[in-house]
Amino acid sequence: MKFLLVLCVVSAGLLGGCATAELRGSGDLGVVIEREAGSVLIVNTTRIAVLSRITELGDLSHASVVFSRDQRYAYVFGRDGGLSKIDLLQDKLEKRIVQAGNSIGGAISQDGRWIAVSNYTPGGVKIFAADTLEQIADIPASYGEGLLSKVVGLADASDQRFVFSLFDADQIWVANLHNPQAPQIQKFSQIGKQPYDALLTPDGRYYLAGLFGETGLAKLDLWQPEAGVNRVLPDYGAHEEKLPVYKMPHLQGWTASGDWLFVPAVGQHEVLVIDKHTWQLLKRIPVAGQPVFVTARPDGRQVWVNFALPDNQLVQVIDVKDLSVSKTLQPGKAVLHMEFSPRGETVWLAIRDDNRVAVYDTETLSEIGQLPADKPSGIFFSARANQLGL
Amino acid sequence: MKFLLVLCVVSAGLLGGCATAELRGSGDLGVVIEREAGSVLIVNTTRIAVLSRITELGDLSHASVVFSRDQRYAYVFGRDGGLSKIDLLQDKLEKRIVQAGNSIGGAISQDGRWIAVSNYTPGGVKIFAADTLEQIADIPASYGEGLLSKVVGLADASDQRFVFSLFDADQIWVANLHNPQAPQIQKFSQIGKQPYDALLTPDGRYYLAGLFGETGLAKLDLWQPEAGVNRVLPDYGAHEEKLPVYKMPHLQGWTASGDWLFVPAVGQHEVLVIDKHTWQLLKRIPVAGQPVFVTARPDGRQVWVNFALPDNQLVQVIDVKDLSVSKTLQPGKAVLHMEFSPRGETVWLAIRDDNRVAVYDTETLSEIGQLPADKPSGIFFSARANQLGL
Repeated sequence: MKFLLVLCVVSAGLLGGCATAELRGSGDLGVVIEREAGSVLIVNTTRIAVLSRITELGDLSHASVVFSRDQRYAYVFGRDGGLSKIDLLQDKLEKRIVQAGNSIGGAISQDGRWIAVSNYTPGGVKIFAADTLEQIADIPASYGEGLLSKVVGLADASDQRFVFSLFDADQIWVANLHNPQAPQIQKFSQIGKQPYDALLTPDGRYYLAGLFGETGLAKLDLWQPEAGVNRVLPDYGAHEEKLPVYKMPHLQGWTASGDWLFVPAVGQHEVLVIDKHTWQLLKRIPVAGQPVFVTARPDGRQVWVNFALPDNQLVQVIDVKDLSVSKTLQPGKAVLHMEFSPRGETVWLAIRDDNRVAVYDTETLSEIGQLPADKPSGIFFSARANQLGL
Repeated sequence: MKFLLVLCVVSAGLLGGCATAELRGSGDLGVVIEREAGSVLIVNTTRIAVLSRITELGDLSHASVVFSRDQRYAYVFGRDGGLSKIDLLQDKLEKRIVQAGNSIGGAISQDGRWIAVSNYTPGGVKIFAADTLEQIADIPASYGEGLLSKVVGLADASDQRFVFSLFDADQIWVANLHNPQAPQIQKFSQIGKQPYDALLTPDGRYYLAGLFGETGLAKLDLWQPEAGVNRVLPDYGAHEEKLPVYKMPHLQGWTASGDWLFVPAVGQHEVLVIDKHTWQLLKRIPVAGQPVFVTARPDGRQVWVNFALPDNQLVQVIDVKDLSVSKTLQPGKAVLHMEFSPRGETVWLAIRDDNRVAVYDTETLSEIGQLPADKPSGIFFSARANQLGL
């Protein structure tokens, strides 16, 4: 005997067009980006299983994903300005729009009602209703004489705010969405040359933007924005050894554990440990290559690091108790991304050139499962719905 | 036109016994305990709506709730030893067992496979399979000559562990569930007199037990259990002013924000602020009554406090930036519990003697909605599935 859920259209009392779907909680679901194919896999993290593949999602280079408040829908932001809403319960593309010519990322508002997308072309942020994808507001990143800046480092924050940086204008903007049709914008200028990416600390308090045009980081304290933007870590981004930089590290790859931020050094074989109280460099941890993502297990005990070419077959695990590398793994060819299950018992690795996702037990540090995937490049679990700043 | 999900029993190719259910993500669901009625409400936190009521759950005094890894099921632990598994997608009681004579709480293992229940009578911990509620293991809290201790302060921890305290035996035990049929137990003795409750810090690192028989707290560092149990906050629990204690504060009402722990003072009109690095008292914040729960908004900016009789009509909000009370609210008669939505934009209050749940906007500190409930005593949202130590 088997139980099935049947989705039916009820019209004028008549049943028609029923489609079956298994009854599915949405707390242990995720999305794997298949970059070259322009598709995503819907996965289940309890059973380590692929549930379905959703195709024709456009250019998914640098794709990122956020989740609806009820974790039923995934919103996929593509490089081509595409915004796709995927129904994780019915394994289908609910709606897709192309909202700009060149897009770099997105976020969902604290209450889940608004989707924000940051665009290169035309430079600015657009706001959409999460339910219908109807455009609600347009925030052109205007500066100077009719110029529009590329927008980067978009993050959602408490009290219905979005924070983002203007690469060409050296500015940080805070948009308040209480009236979504007419967002109120607070602007901070001369924050440093060419902010290229940013992150919100996991507690949602500090917005930090990396600077392409100079060293250091621009820091905005969202608990007291009236204090303005300050510069911290004045040496960050300086290339003492003049190594070629194979990949600018993502700032969203930064991570916090207890009192420390773990940060990929730009162009160097080091992870930097920053004291969150003083914003001073506490330690440089030597690692096997140029770090890209530096991600803490949810309980903060471990930090996992992947690397740019030519070392992207490696992953290293830092034991936070000792602030040193405790294990070097060789999961496969081109490990592009890592995602922890919400309570941290496993971590999923996107291994592009092996066409698979590997699942590791974080206690034994051994592989416990794998799934086939077409050149996977990113993994996003539905528990992100519960977190600010992603 | 309307979409309905129809649940059908498929047997030998025949459809029969279909029941309808709306298609439902499980990320924004919750459970409200109706203590005297022995029932719970299933609620939706996006729409602020009651979806259903599940009845006949036994004695729900001191009831607590954990959620399955997929957020489909809620497990309700009753005072009478009842363990009820509720299907949040189908609004029904899936299974109920009475596993002991007198129970105080429960937890779910990191990987979601095992449910642990801590019992007074007979004293010990029992382990059940989360899917079937079949008993998997029994851990009697044996000490001395054939004695069994009451078990309190049960928490789930990383690496498939449960941690709990033995009230009568002055011990803390750590049970490793890698082999659930035969849990490995690490015992710490003489940890202090009569541990009565405990909490795990939100990062999962420190287990802290309050002591009924003496002052101070027993602290176990789960990152290095070999260091043993130490005593911290030597004055905690001392009643300088000899006020009558109307209610022993729940330690699980403790909360962390950034560098600080916020702790209800026992029997005094104060919230204590503890420095997490030194475990020293940083500040005493005067409040309106004897605090019971002291709960941080998920971003740590606010701490909400409710009170024991005769002040349980009040709730106070502490601004963590200033470490002082910024607002005193009068939500209604007998505010027993508070639960934040996962990203903190709202907080739900159980107002027992007004027979309602009130929903507050945490930015404006005003009531934005309410739901009828029969003497509500506790509120638990499904996002707890993603957190350790609850």
